[in-house]
Amino acid sequence: MIYKNIFTYTCLFFAMQTVTLGQSPERRLVDYVDPMIGTAKMGHTYPGSTVPFGAVQLSPDTDTISYAVNGSYNPDVYKYCAGYKYDDPTIVGFSHTHFSGTGHADLGDFLIMPTSGELKLNPGTADVPGSGYRSLYSHDNEFAAANYYKVKLDAHDITAELTTSSRVGFHRYTFSKSEQSHIILDLMHGIYNYDGKTVWTVARVLNDSTVVGYRQTNGWARTRVVHFAMKFSKPFKSYGSKNLEEMPVYRGFWRKFDQSDNFADIAGSKIRMHFDFDVEVGEQVQVKLALSPISMDNALANMEAEVPHWDFDKTMREGQDLWESELRRIEVKMRKHEDYVNFYTSMYHAALMPTEYMDVNGEYRGQDYQIHKAEGFTNYTSLSLWDTFRAFHPYMNIVNPSRNSDIVQSMIAHYDQSVLNMLPIWSHYANENWCMSGYHSVSVIADAIIKGVYKGDAHKALDACVTTANFRRYEGIGEYIDLGFIPDEKNGTSVSNTLEYAYDDWCIAQLAKYLGRQDVFETFIKRSENWRNLYDASIGFMRPKRADGTFRKEFDVLETHGQGFIEGNTWNYSLYVPHNPEGMMELMGGKERLSNYLDSLFTMHLPDKYFENTEDITREGIIGNYVHGNEPAHHVVYLYQIAGEGWKTQQWVRKILKDQYHNGADGLGGNDDCGQMSAWYLFSSLGFYPVSPGSEEYWLGAPLVESAAINLENGQVFKIEAVNQSDKNMYVQEVLLNGKSLSGYTLKHSDIINGGHLQFRMGAKPKKD
Amino acid sequence: MIYKNIFTYTCLFFAMQTVTLGQSPERRLVDYVDPMIGTAKMGHTYPGSTVPFGAVQLSPDTDTISYAVNGSYNPDVYKYCAGYKYDDPTIVGFSHTHFSGTGHADLGDFLIMPTSGELKLNPGTADVPGSGYRSLYSHDNEFAAANYYKVKLDAHDITAELTTSSRVGFHRYTFSKSEQSHIILDLMHGIYNYDGKTVWTVARVLNDSTVVGYRQTNGWARTRVVHFAMKFSKPFKSYGSKNLEEMPVYRGFWRKFDQSDNFADIAGSKIRMHFDFDVEVGEQVQVKLALSPISMDNALANMEAEVPHWDFDKTMREGQDLWESELRRIEVKMRKHEDYVNFYTSMYHAALMPTEYMDVNGEYRGQDYQIHKAEGFTNYTSLSLWDTFRAFHPYMNIVNPSRNSDIVQSMIAHYDQSVLNMLPIWSHYANENWCMSGYHSVSVIADAIIKGVYKGDAHKALDACVTTANFRRYEGIGEYIDLGFIPDEKNGTSVSNTLEYAYDDWCIAQLAKYLGRQDVFETFIKRSENWRNLYDASIGFMRPKRADGTFRKEFDVLETHGQGFIEGNTWNYSLYVPHNPEGMMELMGGKERLSNYLDSLFTMHLPDKYFENTEDITREGIIGNYVHGNEPAHHVVYLYQIAGEGWKTQQWVRKILKDQYHNGADGLGGNDDCGQMSAWYLFSSLGFYPVSPGSEEYWLGAPLVESAAINLENGQVFKIEAVNQSDKNMYVQEVLLNGKSLSGYTLKHSDIINGGHLQFRMGAKPKKD
Repeated sequence: MIYKNIFTYTCLFFAMQTVTLGQSPERRLVDYVDPMIGTAKMGHTYPGSTVPFGAVQLSPDTDTISYAVNGSYNPDVYKYCAGYKYDDPTIVGFSHTHFSGTGHADLGDFLIMPTSGELKLNPGTADVPGSGYRSLYSHDNEFAAANYYKVKLDAHDITAELTTSSRVGFHRYTFSKSEQSHIILDLMHGIYNYDGKTVWTVARVLNDSTVVGYRQTNGWARTRVVHFAMKFSKPFKSYGSKNLEEMPVYRGFWRKFDQSDNFADIAGSKIRMHFDFDVEVGEQVQVKLALSPISMDNALANMEAEVPHWDFDKTMREGQDLWESELRRIEVKMRKHEDYVNFYTSMYHAALMPTEYMDVNGEYRGQDYQIHKAEGFTNYTSLSLWDTFRAFHPYMNIVNPSRNSDIVQSMIAHYDQSVLNMLPIWSHYANENWCMSGYHSVSVIADAIIKGVYKGDAHKALDACVTTANFRRYEGIGEYIDLGFIPDEKNGTSVSNTLEYAYDDWCIAQLAKYLGRQDVFETFIKRSENWRNLYDASIGFMRPKRADGTFRKEFDVLETHGQGFIEGNTWNYSLYVPHNPEGMMELMGGKERLSNYLDSLFTMHLPDKYFENTEDITREGIIGNYVHGNEPAHHVVYLYQIAGEGWKTQQWVRKILKDQYHNGADGLGGNDDCGQMSAWYLFSSLGFYPVSPGSEEYWLGAPLVESAAINLENGQVFKIEAVNQSDKNMYVQEVLLNGKSLSGYTLKHSDIINGGHLQFRMGAKPKKD
Repeated sequence: MIYKNIFTYTCLFFAMQTVTLGQSPERRLVDYVDPMIGTAKMGHTYPGSTVPFGAVQLSPDTDTISYAVNGSYNPDVYKYCAGYKYDDPTIVGFSHTHFSGTGHADLGDFLIMPTSGELKLNPGTADVPGSGYRSLYSHDNEFAAANYYKVKLDAHDITAELTTSSRVGFHRYTFSKSEQSHIILDLMHGIYNYDGKTVWTVARVLNDSTVVGYRQTNGWARTRVVHFAMKFSKPFKSYGSKNLEEMPVYRGFWRKFDQSDNFADIAGSKIRMHFDFDVEVGEQVQVKLALSPISMDNALANMEAEVPHWDFDKTMREGQDLWESELRRIEVKMRKHEDYVNFYTSMYHAALMPTEYMDVNGEYRGQDYQIHKAEGFTNYTSLSLWDTFRAFHPYMNIVNPSRNSDIVQSMIAHYDQSVLNMLPIWSHYANENWCMSGYHSVSVIADAIIKGVYKGDAHKALDACVTTANFRRYEGIGEYIDLGFIPDEKNGTSVSNTLEYAYDDWCIAQLAKYLGRQDVFETFIKRSENWRNLYDASIGFMRPKRADGTFRKEFDVLETHGQGFIEGNTWNYSLYVPHNPEGMMELMGGKERLSNYLDSLFTMHLPDKYFENTEDITREGIIGNYVHGNEPAHHVVYLYQIAGEGWKTQQWVRKILKDQYHNGADGLGGNDDCGQMSAWYLFSSLGFYPVSPGSEEYWLGAPLVESAAINLENGQVFKIEAVNQSDKNMYVQEVLLNGKSLSGYTLKHSDIINGGHLQFRMGAKPKKD
């Protein structure tokens, strides 16, 4: 039904806008997507195949680096958050689960690698060719598109192609040698791997072409279980496995079997398997591997439901059609091909996470380790909320509201299953990993309810927000409630946390107001002003405060680490009052101070020593001391508006769009962070941004598009037009909403969601009045 | 309905038999049960509480000895197969799962220990009082009965009482001190424990009196998962946990919480918890802990269904009533109180295993790691088939046929779920451990079908038997099929296996004949004669043979280990042709040779050196060179019958009954082996024995009872009477079946199952003609 609406209105729109939209109906938007963007440097995206929000992310992993060496953190592992590092010379294999753009990692389940020649059951090392099953490859022989990835594995003379449905990874391997051929299944491979991370694995060979099993890991997710079912298009002639762990002495009767040789009943924590084939030169062997959070039977059922055939191209096309539908939600006209690539790759990156987390029968694993059935919603997992509450979920509330409603429903289900009665902080695969500060679920929930997106029980959702915000044991909440701030001595990120709690509390207050819950409103609107308690007027910055009310003495305003902050120094974080920017400006000293502050932020020089310890952005992710590669300052560029200098917002927005988002593997200046960086691009290139989610307002910037049509789920279309758009014409001269001049610098959600026409008139000179 | 029938017919029987049955209706049979029998020396029984075939076996564990020391087997662990060692001075706590009488072990889940005084979260060592939570205790302050166990824990001045329903362990702790009181929950405790055996555990504190969780172990069962739900009768005032393993570095955000202190969301592999109470002097705190193979929710539902209240005495009474019903299936009159104790404790021991393995909703975990629902049967686990096929299952086919039908159904379900398409060898908790030789499931299945007990699909069952017997990879089956024996160089127990396979094949042949499957019959009746291939006429014994057809050169007929045998030397094993004893006798040289052989076996001296390496029986478990403490020769005493010397059978049966079964903790001469030793006692004391299960025949011996009534499930009663019974009158002069003199030495199953009257006329002199 959605597709039909989109189609209808798309046609209508094309009829009306043939001039402004040069997009030909024959040109597929999906062809603009380049999954390689962000795979180099610190983007942490993966180049492999998936469908929108798909449960399987089938992608090459280029190394097997350990999270820790001799028990200490190995900083090199950080480069492997998505499994693939663009400048690595070898591929180890293709695993089925990957995060997109995270700054910590997990997953990498069920690595498959086709090989030829002598069987090798260890990956080997990159510096010793032939020391294992890994293979050299060349980017010249690599191609990535939405739901399709292809690479030639030089060591084995095998061409590997990958595609997916939501729950099934589909591999097509073309062998160029007829000598012995193998397909490796590594059950202990993982991203952010670690000796002991694989707690247990099981494999059962059901017949000469079907294997099922599961894998339990103790990683970023503490107790994570993923089941699989795997089928080969051609029966293997033999198979085997190797368990690197010693069999416990008490299991001596198992020695009746040679478990390494064609033995169908395998379990242990350090297992690799191989399946052996006779192939003709040029013969293709295909593999399908389905996932399930619940059971091997469910994995088999998922495969049967989604990919019951061996038609690789059909599965690829179906997935690309899904992508095309997803991308057609926004149809843009831009001036350069590279802009199209940036835009639609951003849409692509903003449709990778969270991922579907349930079987075709609706079953999923809960935070309570039990089997649940999603009734009336799709369950999602991998919620990187500290990142995504800012722009990703607001983007979803416009472009993909039904899905965001289901995501909120999944968060409420998480809450119901949490024995601590907490909404998710950063959760994945039925586990909470507690990553980052704040309790930003409440922002996502408030925003979705206030914008009319969430269809569930709003009062229950508010109760969940209140309970979460009152869990005194969680990261200084008790002290925060008692003192109005988190004392420096209590928490290493006391300022970040206090500021983010204050914003989150404002979200709860807004939701309470919306629902007529006056008591909750009053409590939380009061708490939302707690940011004031950490402002040190003597230096003009937010600053860690001790329980006795005195500010921390030694304090470096440029340093992030060990200063009470996380992923942003006080230059960036002092501006983190998105819900009361005017109040913040007033406290800081008024418009001029704010203007000067922002000017300095964007233009000052940040000495290398402050950058060296920041691991998840590149030097290019920083403009002056403004860190776009991390999130805390994502709203900051829009703050010029309240200083009365909207033209500076426009100027810097255009610069950030230009500098921080490029075509090419190294196109992202920092972690994409599960779509947040991309959502920033999408909003800002359309000309507005949700400075304070939980509010219905968007703040205006300067569009990069020439025109855009947002094809809304309700059948309406919101059109954006930038008249006189050019590289030089970056300054907005006038904004018309449905033909009427817009005063002020904000746009309301209802202005968008009811459809309409937003026209920016662009010019080369700042409009300073 | 069964109960009603038993009651009706019991009354009838009492009316008819008041003279022969001195048993007063007021006297509870359950009071004869002494669970302490077998807890010392090598009995390996446990003294704690359970109901017939109950899923929970709640019993004290007296130490925490490790299965291995520095990676090598620790022989001392063998004494702890049941968790409890009678001569140990301390109790570590009470765990919820125990095998009865095994010679290898596992289990010991969820150890609970009440303590007083300073909190100690380690068990300490027995030689340092106060070094941990363990406690000294005295047998003077210990009492065990069916479904009730009581002990005073001296270190803590706490009286502990235990009782159970099938799925719930019920603890009643009476505190004598009002100072700080604790209840410890040790999630890493286990029997046959080992560093690394506990793969993963989870605990979730749902409220101030409810905890749920699960435990996964890699022990004798490779991949074993047990869930629990635990409730306290009184809210704890605080709680905590300790995880002895280091938290992986990648899980740093968990450091936001002090997980040791009142933290509700616990997981790891080395966890102990404590729950703290304020108690009055003399106050009782009760604990209920329910198990589930499936989930925490199912464990809670099991508790709610079986023990929704806090009435300890009621649960105890209900369980004892179940025992009383179970024991009333055979009502005996015996001459001495100690005989009653032996008899009914044997019945008790023969009703402990296998154990129920499903939730109240019918769900259980299968060999395929998936959730199944038992439709129309109760699923059972812990099948020690090498032991129990001999007399235990035949005993069940008379006394408890519905349950044995369900056990067979459970074996077929195991087969259906086995990826190797194997019937169980020794399976427990959805795992196969492959223990011991043969494929004796086929004996149990054939016996149950031929005797009309198994109600499922007999043809399917036969197919499962054939498939199992043709799995060439299993312990020499391939060579056995090709050569007619397992070559010595192929398998360390080649003779035991060959002999047992031959018997098992005969069972398959009998079943095939019964079902009219002539082709199967012919194949397997031929295979059943393979025992002949290992008889070395030059020495008159079975002997390991090499693939080239020559017998092994160096061979010691008294030695068990390393000679091609397991749990019996060739003196015992050469007689293992239960299905063709006449053929065996003929090959051995006829009646006189057999008679002399048996005389020697029972009277020769076995030098200590041969005994020293036999770990699972005591010196008392051996008569001459006849090893009653192990199973392979359990039928041997009856073989005098075919030598025409039934009087010697009678003499030796009476001697074995007298010597091998006593009252008292050291009352068993060897492992009870999951009821097999006890079933031997029950059959033999009733005057007959199933020499070759799969046949309808029982061989007569000499009864120990004065009289007995077997109250059959079909409502019939089979009465046994021993006229002139006394210690001296151990010889049978005549046997009358339903008043007619019985010629021959066998009794048919139909003679029993249709009800009737078997009269032995006893005398002091052997009847030699």
